[in-house]
Amino acid sequence: MRNIKCVVEYDGTGYSGWQRQSNTRMTIQEKIEDALEKLTRIPTATYAAGRTDAGVHALGQVFNFKTDSTIPAARFPFALNAHLPDDIVVKKAEEVEEDFHSRYAVRGKIYRYQLYNAPQPPAIGRHYFYFYSPPVDVEKMREGARYLEGRHDFAAFRSSGCGAKNTVKELYEIRIDQEGPKIYFTFDGSGFLYNMVRIMVGTLLQVGRGRITPKAVGDILLSRDRKQAGPTVPPEGLILLKVKY
Amino acid sequence: MRNIKCVVEYDGTGYSGWQRQSNTRMTIQEKIEDALEKLTRIPTATYAAGRTDAGVHALGQVFNFKTDSTIPAARFPFALNAHLPDDIVVKKAEEVEEDFHSRYAVRGKIYRYQLYNAPQPPAIGRHYFYFYSPPVDVEKMREGARYLEGRHDFAAFRSSGCGAKNTVKELYEIRIDQEGPKIYFTFDGSGFLYNMVRIMVGTLLQVGRGRITPKAVGDILLSRDRKQAGPTVPPEGLILLKVKY
Repeated sequence: MRNIKCVVEYDGTGYSGWQRQSNTRMTIQEKIEDALEKLTRIPTATYAAGRTDAGVHALGQVFNFKTDSTIPAARFPFALNAHLPDDIVVKKAEEVEEDFHSRYAVRGKIYRYQLYNAPQPPAIGRHYFYFYSPPVDVEKMREGARYLEGRHDFAAFRSSGCGAKNTVKELYEIRIDQEGPKIYFTFDGSGFLYNMVRIMVGTLLQVGRGRITPKAVGDILLSRDRKQAGPTVPPEGLILLKVKY
Repeated sequence: MRNIKCVVEYDGTGYSGWQRQSNTRMTIQEKIEDALEKLTRIPTATYAAGRTDAGVHALGQVFNFKTDSTIPAARFPFALNAHLPDDIVVKKAEEVEEDFHSRYAVRGKIYRYQLYNAPQPPAIGRHYFYFYSPPVDVEKMREGARYLEGRHDFAAFRSSGCGAKNTVKELYEIRIDQEGPKIYFTFDGSGFLYNMVRIMVGTLLQVGRGRITPKAVGDILLSRDRKQAGPTVPPEGLILLKVKY
């Protein structure tokens, strides 16, 4: 069978996340598998680089599927998009080796978290920003972020629901950019634990508000204790930008 | 009576434009005047810097209203937003001289038109971009735009429905920026005729596709003939960024 790898962009606002669920809630995976079935007339399973949670967006999620369809790989974006709602768009497709698996082959991921830091919320793009009104000190958050860069045990920065046995990950870079009221946190890493980005941002916001010092971020990391870290910020600000292979 | 000037951001996607209409269609003005009435218990008229069309967005639309309310000016954003849907957000309010009128006092406006130029449309932010798939030459569009800068008679770049007697306007600057598939046209001018930005972009796209030369934009301007210019591009890409006083 042919193995097709796709890059997909989605606005996660209306969805219960990537993963297909047994109940009736809408998921991205379900929409894509339904489109594949309409196109190829055969139920077809997809394998994503990683699940995204309810409300989380993706600019560059990757999935693959096996098919006997003879549709040329480059035609799949057009063909699938014709059967997908306009908040899910397949951007690219290519044929890959038969043993390629979108999840097992991941070498790294880039996530962005978008904050809107002003007294009033945004109207334009409101579904893609976490509205956070208390003023924050960006320079202090950058200082705090430096303690997270590198290879560490991130056990303090994962949700209790995280079943990963290995909690050691490498964060290559954390960038924090400000454009007026918009603050962008970009995380480039080898991999991420469940809710890790959202807990790191929640912790950096504590630094930004002056509730803890930048150095305390290093202590929280060493504690390996989730209770020491900040809250999990909401999903709407999170975007899976890119998966690296 | 006090005269309050407000800056408002809105996502125009679901609206029939700024101006209140006699039929039942939803308008921004109606939502704001309804919120003002709920707040002050008195029907209150608003005066905007300019109407925006159905589907057009604003980051910095300005309106003013007269009131006897004793609410401090700085409280109006919070108070009004409590009664507004989340696609309309009042960002600032201040008390101004009694004779200030948002439209008559305008010294200039900045508009941005957002294009998404790629084979497949965007999912994230899809309501804020005009999806245009034919490849365009940005450098050629910049050349064409230079013919529009300056003080000119823009009669060729207005819709037939435009009733303005004076069609001479000054365009201080047109900037065209590209970020991956996103192309941003920014127009900084003394004033704009009805649909002028959307017709200028429609014409520049003809240049970008190589259908007309950059120099032809100058000839179209001189013709003062709407039929010589390009099509009016759709409203979803247009944002009123700022009104200058």
